[in-house]
Amino acid sequence: MAAHAEATSSFKLALIQLAVGSDKATNLSRAAEKVREAAQNGSKIVALPECFNSPYGTQYFKDYAEEVPAETGQPGPGAGESCKALSQVARECGVFLVGGSIPEVRKGKYYNTSMSFGPDGALLGVFRKVHLADVNIPGKLRFREPDVLSPGNKFLSFDTDWCKVGIGICYDLRFPELGSIYGLRGCKLLLYPGAFNTVTGPVHWELLIRGLAANNQLFVAGISSAQDLTASYHAWGHSMLCNPWGKVVVSADEKEGIVYGEVDLSEVDRVRSHIPVTAQKRWDLYSITDKTST
Amino acid sequence: MAAHAEATSSFKLALIQLAVGSDKATNLSRAAEKVREAAQNGSKIVALPECFNSPYGTQYFKDYAEEVPAETGQPGPGAGESCKALSQVARECGVFLVGGSIPEVRKGKYYNTSMSFGPDGALLGVFRKVHLADVNIPGKLRFREPDVLSPGNKFLSFDTDWCKVGIGICYDLRFPELGSIYGLRGCKLLLYPGAFNTVTGPVHWELLIRGLAANNQLFVAGISSAQDLTASYHAWGHSMLCNPWGKVVVSADEKEGIVYGEVDLSEVDRVRSHIPVTAQKRWDLYSITDKTST
Repeated sequence: MAAHAEATSSFKLALIQLAVGSDKATNLSRAAEKVREAAQNGSKIVALPECFNSPYGTQYFKDYAEEVPAETGQPGPGAGESCKALSQVARECGVFLVGGSIPEVRKGKYYNTSMSFGPDGALLGVFRKVHLADVNIPGKLRFREPDVLSPGNKFLSFDTDWCKVGIGICYDLRFPELGSIYGLRGCKLLLYPGAFNTVTGPVHWELLIRGLAANNQLFVAGISSAQDLTASYHAWGHSMLCNPWGKVVVSADEKEGIVYGEVDLSEVDRVRSHIPVTAQKRWDLYSITDKTST
Repeated sequence: MAAHAEATSSFKLALIQLAVGSDKATNLSRAAEKVREAAQNGSKIVALPECFNSPYGTQYFKDYAEEVPAETGQPGPGAGESCKALSQVARECGVFLVGGSIPEVRKGKYYNTSMSFGPDGALLGVFRKVHLADVNIPGKLRFREPDVLSPGNKFLSFDTDWCKVGIGICYDLRFPELGSIYGLRGCKLLLYPGAFNTVTGPVHWELLIRGLAANNQLFVAGISSAQDLTASYHAWGHSMLCNPWGKVVVSADEKEGIVYGEVDLSEVDRVRSHIPVTAQKRWDLYSITDKTST
């Protein structure tokens, strides 16, 4: 963006591992507080976790659901309270804000929806979780989002002052096709608000994030809510940023906090020159097609 | 195969982490010895490492290259010595043998080629490394297979008594499209003879193997040669088997040895029922196409 003359190839990213409670207004105000803190500490892109305004659980989604604007740009007076709160704090702080996700209601259907905002508070785009969590590990974990939610049918990538960013939500991490498509679109940073749990988190959360980063040679971050063992769902926490070499740059434990990571985009170019897999794809032998592109 | 009435859903796999030297005949006889040892210990599928009959290095490939039969089935009298040795020991031991890879010469071009054999000694198929290693990490590692080798243009999967098996070689691990295609073909075990090195091995070898296994919910093994710090190329070793949950079942250190792992195919079904990602792919939104299928 021409307006941001200070643009460089490196910026500070903040991952807000929020402690989410049952009071929506408190969740929204605490999220805004953390965004302010991250901005004061120099962050340019700030991301919130999945389901940051509501406890995570199919039993909660309908009660906490809001409408989400059908159009990008400045939210109108009829926008939902979470949308307004996110837009306002993005503008106040002048940051790109990936607003984790919230339960959305739209024409009688429910979605797990992420809204992203520019530093002027404009809604840049909406991502509705494309792959709904459907996990049944007998005796350990049972979770079926499709009981309540409908899946999204579009992907979301948008430009920032530094690079194009691609968005997924949690279980979408298990479908590397999405990350590949974002890589092919030219994204250099993928942000996945998520809430893995204490069963699958220890074995899969870091593995999937690192794998996406190494395979596509770009930065990938997962942003989890903090763990709350008094809640019905035990989020894994461990928000982390992984670099294009596939190494974890910085990560949290399970408690509330802000994880700061430097995203130096020259690392993308360097890794791709050292091991040029992105240029060596055998598109003559296989292809990946984004059927949502119009 | 109807002839193998004892077929069950579980079998022992052996990964032979061979110490490869500069004498081809010695490499072949030592490989055969290890295959015999693995078979005596109950292994049903045995795999050798990349470039098991030759030191690894572009300067060696032409000297060690052999012709590889153009047809599957029992190798004819004109087959190369490595092909004959592999066929013979597979038949002698009654095992499926994934013959790592060898430098191949064919119509004046050179390839990094893997031959797989059935328990009757028949050549089941040939896989020529599809993605050639092209690594240049200044001051640490420079390796350009394309200086000498030509890439393969086909994939290889074949049936065994237990499951379909898919083959890749080393750097092919960096291209998850290959593993995805094998998964879509119904493979439940992927075998990658490889020779990562002491620069990329520590960060990428296990990550890529585990990632393929978790994303496709199948077994994946990497079979490396042993590390030899007196050689020009320092193989990473660490041959390993990873299960469909994305966990390493068993792995070697850097020294010569045989890694044994139980491949229980009911684990594939169990993981896919617990987290049914293979059934949840959004083929309406994206697709992966195998252009080599005829």
